[in-house]
Amino acid sequence: MAGSNRIAQEKVKQAVDILREKDLDCWITFTRESDLTGEPCLDLILDSNVTWLSAFIVFRTGRTAAVVGQGDVQAVESIGSFDEVIGYTQDFNAPFLNLLHEMDPESIAVNFSKDHEAADGLSHGMFLMLEDILRDTPFRERICSSEPLVLPLRGRKTDAETAAIRRAVAATEAILDEVPGHIRPGMTEMQIYHWVQEQMAAKGAEPAWDNAYNPGVYCGPDSPLGHCFPSETVTLKPGQTLVLDFGLQVDGYCADIQRTWYALKTEEAEPPVPVKQTFRDMLDILEAGERVLMPGNTGCDVDGAMRPLITAKGYPEWGFAMGHELGRSAHDGAVCLGPAWPRYGESVHIPLEEGNVFAVECGIRHKEYGYFHFEQDVRITPSGMEYLSAKQKQIYSIPTS
Amino acid sequence: MAGSNRIAQEKVKQAVDILREKDLDCWITFTRESDLTGEPCLDLILDSNVTWLSAFIVFRTGRTAAVVGQGDVQAVESIGSFDEVIGYTQDFNAPFLNLLHEMDPESIAVNFSKDHEAADGLSHGMFLMLEDILRDTPFRERICSSEPLVLPLRGRKTDAETAAIRRAVAATEAILDEVPGHIRPGMTEMQIYHWVQEQMAAKGAEPAWDNAYNPGVYCGPDSPLGHCFPSETVTLKPGQTLVLDFGLQVDGYCADIQRTWYALKTEEAEPPVPVKQTFRDMLDILEAGERVLMPGNTGCDVDGAMRPLITAKGYPEWGFAMGHELGRSAHDGAVCLGPAWPRYGESVHIPLEEGNVFAVECGIRHKEYGYFHFEQDVRITPSGMEYLSAKQKQIYSIPTS
Repeated sequence: MAGSNRIAQEKVKQAVDILREKDLDCWITFTRESDLTGEPCLDLILDSNVTWLSAFIVFRTGRTAAVVGQGDVQAVESIGSFDEVIGYTQDFNAPFLNLLHEMDPESIAVNFSKDHEAADGLSHGMFLMLEDILRDTPFRERICSSEPLVLPLRGRKTDAETAAIRRAVAATEAILDEVPGHIRPGMTEMQIYHWVQEQMAAKGAEPAWDNAYNPGVYCGPDSPLGHCFPSETVTLKPGQTLVLDFGLQVDGYCADIQRTWYALKTEEAEPPVPVKQTFRDMLDILEAGERVLMPGNTGCDVDGAMRPLITAKGYPEWGFAMGHELGRSAHDGAVCLGPAWPRYGESVHIPLEEGNVFAVECGIRHKEYGYFHFEQDVRITPSGMEYLSAKQKQIYSIPTS
Repeated sequence: MAGSNRIAQEKVKQAVDILREKDLDCWITFTRESDLTGEPCLDLILDSNVTWLSAFIVFRTGRTAAVVGQGDVQAVESIGSFDEVIGYTQDFNAPFLNLLHEMDPESIAVNFSKDHEAADGLSHGMFLMLEDILRDTPFRERICSSEPLVLPLRGRKTDAETAAIRRAVAATEAILDEVPGHIRPGMTEMQIYHWVQEQMAAKGAEPAWDNAYNPGVYCGPDSPLGHCFPSETVTLKPGQTLVLDFGLQVDGYCADIQRTWYALKTEEAEPPVPVKQTFRDMLDILEAGERVLMPGNTGCDVDGAMRPLITAKGYPEWGFAMGHELGRSAHDGAVCLGPAWPRYGESVHIPLEEGNVFAVECGIRHKEYGYFHFEQDVRITPSGMEYLSAKQKQIYSIPTS
């Protein structure tokens, strides 16, 4: 919360380095009423909101300046991520243009992108307004997309960011670990959902996405798939699987984890062989992905190593990507571990980098038992990957009573 | 949370009426990963998030359709605000273009606006993407701003919306009413802030804006003004004022209230005459505003009735607007009760309408006692205004012990 923010300070410093690397002169995050409209870059470099029209400017020289409404000055100063904080009462344009004239940047990167929502926080109306402000200046023609800067800035997690994700993972796993002790066959999806929500409330935990489907709860083969509200009528039946899709947020950073359990029948001491085999098939698919999760490969490379195995092993086609970046949002960053389908755009063609954090997932639908889902959080290392969450290596059981 | 959402259903129906009133053929809310990027219109018509590229389309004929990723279909259907929910797996464009070709709208309103952030949820990258999708169709040239539709849609609160704001106001006031029983001179701003945060946690209350400065706490004349983090060192001193700027959110709707207290000295049974007089001066300013808060007047009219009285009564100029709309966000909607300063743009020139809800505010800084702030929530009626919150009619006291 309030005051000095280490991650925001680290990210602004990192932005200076990436401006130099990408040969850009200056980066402007231009926003207003950010609580209402959302600007993913502002979360990164300020981790707070502003009320009035504001510009957060990073120059490749290392100079950093924020032009904000007078009422926001003290808050922005206390965060400490921008060296100069310039307040205005009536007119934003003069102090903003003064800065640009003083520094005369050759390129001005702003946050728009067709392919990457995390680099697309500038609204179209604000873009038109910026063009108006820069009319009759040489700067209007120097506007370009900040995508080359924002994508690595968002994707290359600093140590403090990775540590925050680890805390979110640990908090998420602590609740998931309690499932076999408290969930029983006969409970509806909604009852299971409420049990998880109660654990969250008791711990004062923040959800990593909309509470309405956090956790997602999928019991048996009849549960609809996707971002669905839990059913009031579908129950967990012995001999079927339970999948929870669950994530908490700690210090603004998210975990996103899925686990699969099998509800034992009265006569069973452990899941039957076909259930274990299906889970093992899912792990095989996943481990094919683990072997190619490394710097330099693209999301499409990872997807391509995994997806064909799903149908080769006789399971229905999987209609989702095999993973996504994770960070300040449960779906974050530039890189999607998906196929070259139009809906994924360019996001599947970007090479992975050290420090990227992904939720890697794989799903199988078995017409008798239900869903088998795996989703775990991993970090790209210089030569491969490491798990941030505890990899589920076998199917877990839920006892009858 | 999950399932049927009455307010979202009401707002989509209201959108059909306003399309007809404003002579527009169709309105498209075009978004993706809305959890990350924010789309104020989506909150209104869906009150939930979508993951994949999506279009929510309202035609003046009354037809309503959503084109969403397959994984979002069940959630969007259960909310019930759009009659048709069309899911896609790989390609968004085909079902989206089919709808447009079938209906052939003459005008296509999308969410961009230079002046109003609540009508400016379309990102610039998404705007470019929409132009690409509509290339080689007659529709590209029919794009226009949805501002004429979105501003009244946001501003004209339905009964269910007003009822939600009343609940938020009641929850906020319940905590403010406890202040004289628990806050004492000698506490720092940060201690007072933590006391309020503890009351919120005990009630499971949601803040109406960033917790980091909710409540804003201002003790005596030395506290910096604006959206500031509470100080660890400034304390509430006998003979000085305390202002809290505080708001809770209930069912997605916000309250935004400020009250002023005076910390009694040991020998005082009530605030001294000059303190009461200063508070009375502030009420005079406010009541000049009450008399012109009615349909047809603009925000500038309201500001113009209030602002000159501040300096006429000998107080320093007030650097903020005299109020703002309230709704799903604490700063919401189109109309600002402010002066014609460049930073407020067109927002101060729009006539008020029945059903608008405002936080009306006024502030005085007294160099000896500190701040006197008033901020209360009101609704515009057919002929004037009504209070949704309990109007503070005199300065409240905080006892010494």
